[in-house]
Amino acid sequence: MGKQLGEIAELLGGLLDGPADLVINGATNIEAASASEITFAVPPHLEKAEACAAAAVIIPENVKQFAKPCIRVRDPRLAFARLLNLFAPSASYAPGVDARAFVAADATVHPTAAVLAGACVESGAVIGEGTVVYPQAYVGPRAVVGSHCRLYPQSVVREDCVLGDRVTLQPGAVIGGDGFGYVTVEGRHYKVPQVGNVILHDDVEVGCNACIDRATTGSTIIGRGTKIDNLVHLAHNDVVGENCFFVALTGISGSVTIGDNVTFAGQSGAAGHLTIGDNCVFAAKAGIISDVPAGSFYAGFPAKPHKEWLKAEAHVNKLADMAKRLKTLEARLAKVERDQE
Amino acid sequence: MGKQLGEIAELLGGLLDGPADLVINGATNIEAASASEITFAVPPHLEKAEACAAAAVIIPENVKQFAKPCIRVRDPRLAFARLLNLFAPSASYAPGVDARAFVAADATVHPTAAVLAGACVESGAVIGEGTVVYPQAYVGPRAVVGSHCRLYPQSVVREDCVLGDRVTLQPGAVIGGDGFGYVTVEGRHYKVPQVGNVILHDDVEVGCNACIDRATTGSTIIGRGTKIDNLVHLAHNDVVGENCFFVALTGISGSVTIGDNVTFAGQSGAAGHLTIGDNCVFAAKAGIISDVPAGSFYAGFPAKPHKEWLKAEAHVNKLADMAKRLKTLEARLAKVERDQE
Amino acid sequence: MGKQLGEIAELLGGLLDGPADLVINGATNIEAASASEITFAVPPHLEKAEACAAAAVIIPENVKQFAKPCIRVRDPRLAFARLLNLFAPSASYAPGVDARAFVAADATVHPTAAVLAGACVESGAVIGEGTVVYPQAYVGPRAVVGSHCRLYPQSVVREDCVLGDRVTLQPGAVIGGDGFGYVTVEGRHYKVPQVGNVILHDDVEVGCNACIDRATTGSTIIGRGTKIDNLVHLAHNDVVGENCFFVALTGISGSVTIGDNVTFAGQSGAAGHLTIGDNCVFAAKAGIISDVPAGSFYAGFPAKPHKEWLKAEAHVNKLADMAKRLKTLEARLAKVERDQE
Repeated sequence: MGKQLGEIAELLGGLLDGPADLVINGATNIEAASASEITFAVPPHLEKAEACAAAAVIIPENVKQFAKPCIRVRDPRLAFARLLNLFAPSASYAPGVDARAFVAADATVHPTAAVLAGACVESGAVIGEGTVVYPQAYVGPRAVVGSHCRLYPQSVVREDCVLGDRVTLQPGAVIGGDGFGYVTVEGRHYKVPQVGNVILHDDVEVGCNACIDRATTGSTIIGRGTKIDNLVHLAHNDVVGENCFFVALTGISGSVTIGDNVTFAGQSGAAGHLTIGDNCVFAAKAGIISDVPAGSFYAGFPAKPHKEWLKAEAHVNKLADMAKRLKTLEARLAKVERDQE
Repeated sequence: MGKQLGEIAELLGGLLDGPADLVINGATNIEAASASEITFAVPPHLEKAEACAAAAVIIPENVKQFAKPCIRVRDPRLAFARLLNLFAPSASYAPGVDARAFVAADATVHPTAAVLAGACVESGAVIGEGTVVYPQAYVGPRAVVGSHCRLYPQSVVREDCVLGDRVTLQPGAVIGGDGFGYVTVEGRHYKVPQVGNVILHDDVEVGCNACIDRATTGSTIIGRGTKIDNLVHLAHNDVVGENCFFVALTGISGSVTIGDNVTFAGQSGAAGHLTIGDNCVFAAKAGIISDVPAGSFYAGFPAKPHKEWLKAEAHVNKLADMAKRLKTLEARLAKVERDQE
Repeated sequence: MGKQLGEIAELLGGLLDGPADLVINGATNIEAASASEITFAVPPHLEKAEACAAAAVIIPENVKQFAKPCIRVRDPRLAFARLLNLFAPSASYAPGVDARAFVAADATVHPTAAVLAGACVESGAVIGEGTVVYPQAYVGPRAVVGSHCRLYPQSVVREDCVLGDRVTLQPGAVIGGDGFGYVTVEGRHYKVPQVGNVILHDDVEVGCNACIDRATTGSTIIGRGTKIDNLVHLAHNDVVGENCFFVALTGISGSVTIGDNVTFAGQSGAAGHLTIGDNCVFAAKAGIISDVPAGSFYAGFPAKPHKEWLKAEAHVNKLADMAKRLKTLEARLAKVERDQE
């Protein structure tokens, strides 16, 4: 597994500053790195990295002086991510269907895919090239899973849902649960059948125990490259653009349309039937209750522009002072009134 | 699968306005409907429906003019839900225990129930008439599952819990996890055994990865017809009435008593040992920290009557203005005081 | 299963006040207790306990008068927890690997451990003495599970994670999902491989569908005796001390360091890279966005000392009154100004 520092610099397209034949056996963080490992650093962590045990450090190209063997690159984080792939590649699995998997006779599993023990692939489902269906994962009837996907243990893809290529479902993620739709007649709730599906485009990742509900009719759609953290809830008929982030415990109600490159920080939420423009950012715990134009940075509940929210917070923190000044004014004015009589 | 429009009108008990022999092949939403499908519309979507591709539209009985074949009914949503069931019926499964299921010798499975591959039914458990236990679902020792239930993949019913009839557990739902109960002695937390169970009455539905904890002693109880969305947490010894809604990511602490027809919007929560009356509604993100009388509409944290919350919000939004007026008053009063001397 | 009251008093180290030969058949709560059962009571529930059907009651040692057979102890809750263990012991399982479990040839399962049907233990994994791996639970490659652990159905321990002794995973808990780490280059998010692991020390309990993510590099660490409720999210590289409580639906971002004996109430959250001292308490829905010194009690968002939060809330509730007073002042001052001319 050892790699020479020169090889690594070449691989990363970086500038080597140190011995090309230095052997590196792994990549890890500053604190954990041993004398045969490489790490990375960006400001303000450069000094700590100079003093750490690592053999070499990946640093930004604009850092002039550095007291250790180093490789200068444009984006140290990205370079480090590539090294992690190099030194700790994802597990690979022998292709084929394990004899102890539950695979329907009329399911289509690509010969290079791996369906592991205890996994279930139902009738009419399709599993693409190089995809791994881990033990105890579930792929429902007629679901289509693209190539090079990873469906971790206990993940669920219900019937008729469609996953693009390189989609990852972390353990316990559920794609295609019934949307929460009822018609209430005389106080009783009758279920509206949820006969649509979910479409996850290429490169989508869904976190542990996150839930994306199937549409009532039509499709709930998640755009290419969108990343969804643990315990996120996306409801029926949501349509999400590309390259969005949904951080943990965020919940989006039904029929919300979301543009590209939108970030929802943790525990944020949105009411139903809203339209949210491209490039928006929502602070943690934000609660969105109306449409939001593209490029907005919102916070609070009800969510408002972050600057307004900051001002309102600042004013709230000055309320004790305001109350005092108000009382003083009343006393002074009373005196003025008395004196005037 | 085709049905004539006249048949559909009769089935729905609606008034036909169009050719009785028009053949309809499916039901879907306005945007997706093709020329052989039926959709529904209520204001303000009637015009869009008139212009859409659908063959026919279900509309409210009080709509006089409509430029397309239509069926007039009292509740178009309910009618549409029934049509979805007609055109896209739930999957049916051959009755019987799959040879690859893990079913204890002394479990009782009704001959019309289906226990699918990889499902587990433990010792002493009972599975009722027509119930489907999906692949990889779990029914613990002595648990009783009523008739016509659906336990989707990865759902869990732990030991001794009881489900009524027509109960649905979406994928990953957990019924009967241990309540979060500890006794702390000198800083260490000792587990209080959670030896009670959970009772879900008829027609309860539990969303994906939602959790309903077993009681410490006695039962956590969910009343008939209550619907629970994804990622909801209901704690030990909660007693919930009938026909409630718990929207996604709501959390209710232990020993809370909740009446009938109560709605908790998304990401709301309640502290422990509270009593909440019938017909209450809690806005999204509400945090309830004291008892709430029947018929209340609360919002905010701590939750207060929605009107009060709205007023407080309005005042907070005017704080910049108040601060300015206060400053002006101080300046004017200072001038008055100077002039008075 | 019957026990004499005298035996019970001896077992609990309590003071018997009643007939030593009274036979007790179970322990439960005040409301549910029958004439052959024992319950416990602390103020203000003592009178209710005196009037209930129970045969005997465990009460605090400082209660002088009690109208029923009783046992006086220092900590009635703790005593009751011990009785629940006595009358309703945890299920025991015959040791051994069920023939229908999926266990790798090179996994190491202690002869006293039980690996049940449909459970999966991957290559190189280790299962300790007396541990129970329930049906459909998953233990990934090279994961190490200590002794006397319980891994309930659908729980997941991914590759290389380490569990101490007496660790409990409730159903659906996920240990070692990938951290939510991406490098964004020109608007696209590239996954940072998450090659670290999770370490759960002894006596940790993880609730239903809770998620603890593996570290990017190094370890996410949960200290001894910390208890984690349902649907909690702990992110990559968090380091949590001993004997903490994380109540349901709490989310902690990545690289947060948390001391010992810290309590996060329900739906609270913390931003990333923070340091939180020992013995802190965070109220429900608190949102922590900066470091917090040891011993703090914080509430609100952004979280602030609870007293300050209470004051700010009180002022907000008085805003209508302040607005009125401000208006009155303006009118009075205008009159004074007119009169002064």
